Amino acid sequence: MNIYATEKSQHYLAQVTSFIHDKILPVEAELLAENRRLNHHQDWTQWQLLPHIETLKRQAKTLGLWNLFLPDSELGQGLSCVEYAPLAEEMGRSLLAPEIFNCNAPDTGNMEVLYHFGNEQQKAQWLTPLLSGDIRSVFAMTEPDVASSDATNMQATIIEDGDDVIINGRKWWSTGLGHPNCQIMIFMGLSDPDAPKHQRHSMVLVPINTPGVTITRMLSAYGDFDAPYGHGEMELVNVRVPKSHVIMGLGKGFEIAQGRLGPGRIHHCMRAIGAAERALSLAIERGQSRVAFGQPIIKLGGNLERIAQARMAIDQARLLTLNAAWKIDNLGVKHAMTDISAIKVVVPSVLSQVVDMAIQIYGGAGMNHDTPLAGFAAMARSLRLADGPDEVHMAMVSRLELAKYK
Amino acid sequence: MNIYATEKSQHYLAQVTSFIHDKILPVEAELLAENRRLNHHQDWTQWQLLPHIETLKRQAKTLGLWNLFLPDSELGQGLSCVEYAPLAEEMGRSLLAPEIFNCNAPDTGNMEVLYHFGNEQQKAQWLTPLLSGDIRSVFAMTEPDVASSDATNMQATIIEDGDDVIINGRKWWSTGLGHPNCQIMIFMGLSDPDAPKHQRHSMVLVPINTPGVTITRMLSAYGDFDAPYGHGEMELVNVRVPKSHVIMGLGKGFEIAQGRLGPGRIHHCMRAIGAAERALSLAIERGQSRVAFGQPIIKLGGNLERIAQARMAIDQARLLTLNAAWKIDNLGVKHAMTDISAIKVVVPSVLSQVVDMAIQIYGGAGMNHDTPLAGFAAMARSLRLADGPDEVHMAMVSRLELAKYK
Amino acid sequence: MNIYATEKSQHYLAQVTSFIHDKILPVEAELLAENRRLNHHQDWTQWQLLPHIETLKRQAKTLGLWNLFLPDSELGQGLSCVEYAPLAEEMGRSLLAPEIFNCNAPDTGNMEVLYHFGNEQQKAQWLTPLLSGDIRSVFAMTEPDVASSDATNMQATIIEDGDDVIINGRKWWSTGLGHPNCQIMIFMGLSDPDAPKHQRHSMVLVPINTPGVTITRMLSAYGDFDAPYGHGEMELVNVRVPKSHVIMGLGKGFEIAQGRLGPGRIHHCMRAIGAAERALSLAIERGQSRVAFGQPIIKLGGNLERIAQARMAIDQARLLTLNAAWKIDNLGVKHAMTDISAIKVVVPSVLSQVVDMAIQIYGGAGMNHDTPLAGFAAMARSLRLADGPDEVHMAMVSRLELAKYK
Amino acid sequence: MNIYATEKSQHYLAQVTSFIHDKILPVEAELLAENRRLNHHQDWTQWQLLPHIETLKRQAKTLGLWNLFLPDSELGQGLSCVEYAPLAEEMGRSLLAPEIFNCNAPDTGNMEVLYHFGNEQQKAQWLTPLLSGDIRSVFAMTEPDVASSDATNMQATIIEDGDDVIINGRKWWSTGLGHPNCQIMIFMGLSDPDAPKHQRHSMVLVPINTPGVTITRMLSAYGDFDAPYGHGEMELVNVRVPKSHVIMGLGKGFEIAQGRLGPGRIHHCMRAIGAAERALSLAIERGQSRVAFGQPIIKLGGNLERIAQARMAIDQARLLTLNAAWKIDNLGVKHAMTDISAIKVVVPSVLSQVVDMAIQIYGGAGMNHDTPLAGFAAMARSLRLADGPDEVHMAMVSRLELAKYK
Repeated sequence: MNIYATEKSQHYLAQVTSFIHDKILPVEAELLAENRRLNHHQDWTQWQLLPHIETLKRQAKTLGLWNLFLPDSELGQGLSCVEYAPLAEEMGRSLLAPEIFNCNAPDTGNMEVLYHFGNEQQKAQWLTPLLSGDIRSVFAMTEPDVASSDATNMQATIIEDGDDVIINGRKWWSTGLGHPNCQIMIFMGLSDPDAPKHQRHSMVLVPINTPGVTITRMLSAYGDFDAPYGHGEMELVNVRVPKSHVIMGLGKGFEIAQGRLGPGRIHHCMRAIGAAERALSLAIERGQSRVAFGQPIIKLGGNLERIAQARMAIDQARLLTLNAAWKIDNLGVKHAMTDISAIKVVVPSVLSQVVDMAIQIYGGAGMNHDTPLAGFAAMARSLRLADGPDEVHMAMVSRLELAKYK
Repeated sequence: MNIYATEKSQHYLAQVTSFIHDKILPVEAELLAENRRLNHHQDWTQWQLLPHIETLKRQAKTLGLWNLFLPDSELGQGLSCVEYAPLAEEMGRSLLAPEIFNCNAPDTGNMEVLYHFGNEQQKAQWLTPLLSGDIRSVFAMTEPDVASSDATNMQATIIEDGDDVIINGRKWWSTGLGHPNCQIMIFMGLSDPDAPKHQRHSMVLVPINTPGVTITRMLSAYGDFDAPYGHGEMELVNVRVPKSHVIMGLGKGFEIAQGRLGPGRIHHCMRAIGAAERALSLAIERGQSRVAFGQPIIKLGGNLERIAQARMAIDQARLLTLNAAWKIDNLGVKHAMTDISAIKVVVPSVLSQVVDMAIQIYGGAGMNHDTPLAGFAAMARSLRLADGPDEVHMAMVSRLELAKYK
Repeated sequence: MNIYATEKSQHYLAQVTSFIHDKILPVEAELLAENRRLNHHQDWTQWQLLPHIETLKRQAKTLGLWNLFLPDSELGQGLSCVEYAPLAEEMGRSLLAPEIFNCNAPDTGNMEVLYHFGNEQQKAQWLTPLLSGDIRSVFAMTEPDVASSDATNMQATIIEDGDDVIINGRKWWSTGLGHPNCQIMIFMGLSDPDAPKHQRHSMVLVPINTPGVTITRMLSAYGDFDAPYGHGEMELVNVRVPKSHVIMGLGKGFEIAQGRLGPGRIHHCMRAIGAAERALSLAIERGQSRVAFGQPIIKLGGNLERIAQARMAIDQARLLTLNAAWKIDNLGVKHAMTDISAIKVVVPSVLSQVVDMAIQIYGGAGMNHDTPLAGFAAMARSLRLADGPDEVHMAMVSRLELAKYK
Repeated sequence: MNIYATEKSQHYLAQVTSFIHDKILPVEAELLAENRRLNHHQDWTQWQLLPHIETLKRQAKTLGLWNLFLPDSELGQGLSCVEYAPLAEEMGRSLLAPEIFNCNAPDTGNMEVLYHFGNEQQKAQWLTPLLSGDIRSVFAMTEPDVASSDATNMQATIIEDGDDVIINGRKWWSTGLGHPNCQIMIFMGLSDPDAPKHQRHSMVLVPINTPGVTITRMLSAYGDFDAPYGHGEMELVNVRVPKSHVIMGLGKGFEIAQGRLGPGRIHHCMRAIGAAERALSLAIERGQSRVAFGQPIIKLGGNLERIAQARMAIDQARLLTLNAAWKIDNLGVKHAMTDISAIKVVVPSVLSQVVDMAIQIYGGAGMNHDTPLAGFAAMARSLRLADGPDEVHMAMVSRLELAKYK
């Protein structure tokens, strides 16, 4: 228990922990192997869902362990950011868990956008089936032809045309685009290049099957296609949707992006911390059970110091993230900008180091998919680029730091 | 403001901050230079106190900014560990401040020992003048002839002899031994080699001027004698003190050491965090004011990333320390063992890195004593060995981690 | 040019460099994509060779750019270890090149074993077709059920039975086992548990299609099956081969392993250095061509310092490896033990860092298979475990260092 | 033995090694303690030379172990840069040795300037007594009021006035300025602000006792005044010397600085490598002789890996430096620019890490002046700033790297 825990949070944490322990972990290896068997090829059009995962989703939903990320008491369980954080950590221990509790990226972020900024019709049409877990969604922002770390480089366009908007552009690393149930994307593009800098972009809801949308391929990240979600590349040529699909109105893209920012960052960082804890425990279990040169591996060389370093790094990363969550809840996102950027840099880096250490202790089995370690490694590597490369966030932290001296 | 702040803590923090800002920082450079002028030689018998520091001590005392570290409402201000922590950080910004508020090591730790474990007579004779700031003290534990990282190596002896105990042994790195007002030491030694492991050692109060105590020399740490405190080496030959000078009774050495441990660790770590903040601000100020190759130095190469790394490391180190303090206050030292060891490793390392970065940005002036940076560097380096080398504490963290798997 | 270059080495280097530049790099992306298309699934029995690679192999062979690794003037070109080293580096720039010059692991190591330790019949049967590039081979050493970092843990057995030996055991990470042309393995196992420590093991030639050999699966390394080579897992149950298949005689396993050690280490380290150079150049090209926040990415944040760090690390790693090669050639493997272990630790670590940096600069495209970077990353990660984990080699370096003080 | 060794180099190396082993190391601790006793205060006007060091200098001179750094066969021994390098390493093992062989900075660099660029009269007046070891010298370049990492910031002026030049300006970190025998400085300043960028500066010989030269103070580096050399701060007000004191003529400052660059860099880097070797051996000896928790300290935690890391880092740093020396000798300084900058960054950093590790293993005694470690630490820290901060040299390495792509 720590200073940030509330009774409500502890209550749900206990339930989520039990569910993962009793229902997910015992079948995790088998499900991951089945997924690789069914989906380990790059033809995403043939990707399939695992029936048992659908069963587990229904069970979690029945128990009310569903949409816990949403701070709404009716649609979710009314958990604040700091209250949800330990649940996200727990879910992060398994690559399968977030989906089972309907708490996986990018759907959580997309649901938050619709919840906070969507109008009633948009909510009815898209938020409702997302909250029920019936469909999946995509957030289409990064582009292949420019340095997307600078959002102002964005080239895709969203042009008004009567009651419609016409969309053109290429996007990639659109996570979830390969999912059999993926039906909707939130697409960000340039709607008015002459407007003030932060009013040039818009977000619009585009059904995946709209004419003019072509999925080119799925991208692998460190060899991993992350099926059945996939990281997609697509081209939109003269795609036409009604203006009513624009979220909040044209020119509101950056405003929405800012709002999507804080809690989503907390979520993925806490999941990464859960993954790091899992990796640490795998390292310890393996290191204690295998013997070399007359001793358990864990006692050889600098291994015990590495365990200590991992413990210290994880604990610090967690406190930094919880404190950022506390600031978001209590002071608002604007007073947590340093923290929100800092965790983006710190947490994936800690996960990378811990996973790397665990694989080194695990030996060959750590690189193979017999354990979740290789999956965590790919996730950690992706997170150092996704959501803006670390360097952009370090630039933000130093800019805010220097601003104190003016 | 952060989650750990209380109103009481904020109240004293504001006062301490003002005092340091208004009365210490403006004269700090001058006082440090005067100290070097008066005391920069190794003959500690000639070391002198600076009159202006004595004046500042009286002012702080008058304002009630005195003994704030002590959790007693009458002798101190009744601040908990987590409440005192930000005050210690603030004091750590200046090498001179802790003494001025009567909150400097090792006297704070020694006062805590006397406060918690001393009898009435010991308190009257030694705690009272320490609390009033009239005398200074020493904690004599580390020995030159053995690896003191393993406390069971200790060779000094404390042997019962009628109503007295007779003490023999060599100690070094006894901080404060060169101070003109140093009058008393808490001396730890072996009193019963045949007792159970943690009942073999005792702590005894030994006045510095007791016959048989010979101060051999002061030791420099990275070239710094740390005058007028000094890190002393001494020899005790057949030193005889009444048995009433033994604290808590023979065999209680380890028990007392454990009790001294937690809060003292919080104090020195928070002071180190304050020093790191000061170093960071010096780096930024210098980096913005000096120009090379057409730009402020702060913008060259990877400097801005280094500023961000420093901010992120300091924030994590502070949260780790505050959380350890919160656990000590709320759960007890025994439930904070991992944290108390972790901060010992993390915080001096962060201070080392931040100070090193600041010196590199500062250039030659950073190595010289024109700024507090070289002093902070020596302090950081010492802290990685003092109070047990980092490696011993990493071993503790990993031992506690593995214990979870049994 | 550097001190280690000879005219002969420079001659072949120029030819290899031209071949790679003119014939491999222009089609590399296309061939890698075709390979992924054909072979990106885990069913190795369906893996195919790329006809164009076979064509390139014939061209290289015709030009005499073939078996350059072999220090024999007739079968190879008589290049010493230090002379071949820069050629290996050049080949390492492309994941496809080593095979095209018939210089890829593990076949090179296996050919060296046969060349140095095989008898005439073994050479005729297996070395000749390996040298001609008609078949591929496997080195079966690592086992799934024990910590293989300690070779004495090996459990597989090779038992004499009349004129035959009978082999039992499980092996994995047998690289090349999935290759359509793979026909022979060098299998290491325990032949006499009661012999002196370094005479207990033997190496025996086992045709892949011998009854009792079952290939269980191919293992992915960080998601990469490395098709069409593959890292195989297999089981041998009562596999019987004639005693004439034993290399050098029973009990000679460690002696052969030692002989295989030095040059093979040089080869893979130099290839890794070539990969690091390629990664560095990709980082620079991308960093100069993409713009963010008004500047080429290469100029942002600490990127230029990272380029410098990469250059300095690669140059040091190369000199260390060349110097090890020089010692092997001039003083013998026994006088290069520290160096041979040191490069095993240093070089893959440098490759890991440089590739990671390059990916971070490259952005999303760096993680995907559009560049060789993700492949290099998997290779680097594997090399930190393959051939003994880094930690085992650090233990060797420190043991040799301490031995100087006896 | 390694590839770079020549017979001539080995011959002198054997003699230097014997001299250090037989005559310096046995009295080193005593001499360092005597130096601290005599000179450990900041009043440089009272600093004294140690008679025994003067005796050792005479002995080395008699044996021809004198001015070995100078590539002249008559004035020195005609050793090339790569031949002298191992001698510099050996001398670097002791803080006292370089002076004893008349091979200490900055006198070596100054002698090289006079040797290569001085006219006959300048040589007779200043080079001769420097070569004989009768006087010491200073190189006055860095200034307190600007970022001296950018040489074009230099503010001191050297103005023609009839047959004289008039010099004004402040300099600091002028090493050797406190030495009792220091008589001459090479002063660099701005002589023509309107000339092309690299012809604006000049170097002029200024006797220390010229009217208008005021030594303000000696600077400490990490608490170390480096007596009896000292790092001086001085002011020159209307200092007048004859124009014949200008080296090579006005406007030649940068040309001379370039020429001084390469070999001097090799010398100080090789000395640093020698210091790192010494630190490593001290760590091993202490780590083997002290026991904690039932084992020699060297076997605890990650210590053995640290020993291996030190060995690998030192070996790489040495090869990088020797290779730079080889390029200077064989290809010329202009073809070794990357290497000369790279060793400036790499070697002091390696020394810092190895010394830090050694101190951590040594414990408290490592921080104190009982061993050379604290001195090496101060030297390492200074070297990361002296001769341009590391960051400036990394910028040079990356600039040269990017230039390959134009």
